[in-house]
Amino acid sequence: MNAALNHQVRLAARPQGLPKPTDWEHTSEPVGEPGEGEILVKTLYLSLDPAMRGWMNDQRSYVPPVGIGEVMRAGGVGEVIASRHPGFAEGDHVNGILNAQEYAVVAGDGATKVDPSLAPLPVYLDALGITGMTAYFGLLDVGQAKEGDTVVVSGAAGAVGNVTGQIARIKGCRVIGIAGGEEKCRWLTEDLGFDAAIDYKGGDVGAGLREHAPKGVNVFFDNVGGEILDEVLARLAPKARVVICGAISQYNTETGFRGPQNYMMLLVVRARMEGFVVFDYRDRYAEAAGEIAGWLQSGELQAREDVVEGGIEVFPETLLKLFNGENTGKLVLKVADG
Amino acid sequence: MNAALNHQVRLAARPQGLPKPTDWEHTSEPVGEPGEGEILVKTLYLSLDPAMRGWMNDQRSYVPPVGIGEVMRAGGVGEVIASRHPGFAEGDHVNGILNAQEYAVVAGDGATKVDPSLAPLPVYLDALGITGMTAYFGLLDVGQAKEGDTVVVSGAAGAVGNVTGQIARIKGCRVIGIAGGEEKCRWLTEDLGFDAAIDYKGGDVGAGLREHAPKGVNVFFDNVGGEILDEVLARLAPKARVVICGAISQYNTETGFRGPQNYMMLLVVRARMEGFVVFDYRDRYAEAAGEIAGWLQSGELQAREDVVEGGIEVFPETLLKLFNGENTGKLVLKVADG
Repeated sequence: MNAALNHQVRLAARPQGLPKPTDWEHTSEPVGEPGEGEILVKTLYLSLDPAMRGWMNDQRSYVPPVGIGEVMRAGGVGEVIASRHPGFAEGDHVNGILNAQEYAVVAGDGATKVDPSLAPLPVYLDALGITGMTAYFGLLDVGQAKEGDTVVVSGAAGAVGNVTGQIARIKGCRVIGIAGGEEKCRWLTEDLGFDAAIDYKGGDVGAGLREHAPKGVNVFFDNVGGEILDEVLARLAPKARVVICGAISQYNTETGFRGPQNYMMLLVVRARMEGFVVFDYRDRYAEAAGEIAGWLQSGELQAREDVVEGGIEVFPETLLKLFNGENTGKLVLKVADG
Repeated sequence: MNAALNHQVRLAARPQGLPKPTDWEHTSEPVGEPGEGEILVKTLYLSLDPAMRGWMNDQRSYVPPVGIGEVMRAGGVGEVIASRHPGFAEGDHVNGILNAQEYAVVAGDGATKVDPSLAPLPVYLDALGITGMTAYFGLLDVGQAKEGDTVVVSGAAGAVGNVTGQIARIKGCRVIGIAGGEEKCRWLTEDLGFDAAIDYKGGDVGAGLREHAPKGVNVFFDNVGGEILDEVLARLAPKARVVICGAISQYNTETGFRGPQNYMMLLVVRARMEGFVVFDYRDRYAEAAGEIAGWLQSGELQAREDVVEGGIEVFPETLLKLFNGENTGKLVLKVADG
């Protein structure tokens, strides 16, 4: 018997625009018991991702929408506190879909063991987790980035964006990040080794691209959509690849999603625009994680997590940091001490 | 000395919206003389293409814009009436960029001999010309259409559209055409063997796609853009290919090009959207023309030309038939008797 309570954050209503406090419900229930093949995990850190906003809409997507009244879907890392799966023991640390709650009962087959002695736990939600996998496969497999390519990344100071740009640099590409604000841009160029950064809040993105990518853009890794996508489409090089990873500028729109007006540039320069979902690369995560771990160890790649304290209660307000430009690096919510 | 006059149609102004009579200038000048390596061609038929509208704008594209005061660019077939190129003799028939004029002096290296005993001359502007090449390489190379695929073609009763659909049928695909009006739709299904046709003027394109492509669309060959592109994006199958060939619904817009609002469906279904320009396949034209000629001979593929009489004078008004829905099949202007 476990008398502890499991505090949870559930979706109460489908948001219009930015999620409001009333779109959420805070509940608690007794901590569950793992069934055969399952493990009980104490949530330590949750990953906060722009994609979550899409999961809150009732629309066709690559995963079903979160239902009204359901615990909000979220990836996380935690500690196994009870196991009925032969692959896990109490005290193990795991990465999986734990959802916005303090304790999760999950299928052992859906969890992955992680080693906190090799990297701090939040890194397993960042460069060594879905964030890193997204950057790696989106850039190298979908985008086919090659040495010498000019790669532009939007949302470049965000979680996926900064890792994408760093991988592009490591692979010998010329890397230009687009981000909001001088401080983020400075971080990209001074700390992370981007060749250039364009501050979309402070300047003209088109002019920045003309200056920094005079021969055009070979790979555009887009996390943002909207006007920035149109600006880059107008500057594509022949046979360019536009990788559609996200469209954070449009997720909270209340006036209708903006499509890329300049999409006919795909014809002009014989380019392609392609979407992907990282889960399709599940069988190759180990390959990517191995390479990324090497770069982290050598210092070639820096992981930066923006860890917010406050426990599960502050999940709703923390999520908003993704959409108001406050966040740099990977946004992580600390739910409990390990 | 050649006393004949060469009547020409020149671009007088950049059109806003649909080209008006005042956007054109009718001129005449003495017929030119071929220089070394050149041939003098009497224009017999000109190809009228939606892409011409784009060439009239001052914008970055895959060819330079037609300059104000220049003879309008146009492909055509004609008869060699003087030759200073060893590959051509008087009386030969050729296909090339003859432009909107009665006589053209062109480089022999830019012209291709055609044989009027194998096919009527207008067919060399249609299935055996750029139209057929566009359909063939767009569908099979860019779109990677394979036996069993569900292929949707917009502008399906147009020149490229009807040939694309027929090639898809021949290759064992399920083919759905989108066209304007019952008569065009009947032609597609009853005469050309399309599996289904959706009349966008008379019905709901989304509903038609749900009915005729219940498992989704594997290849979308888009000649139209606008709302139809959005409807098909919402019905793509996993790993679908969207071939961007044109956007005729948008070429004359005065309210701004409409981008595809549903482009994030590329992510949801892991699809790609890719543009192409047929000229890139120049080295493989013979391969395609050979296969298409076989289908024409066996009757598997039908070529339909909408040949307008009236000579070079009616070029401007004839072009408008492409944009007002009047035209079915390949629009060709007869300039002179062969």
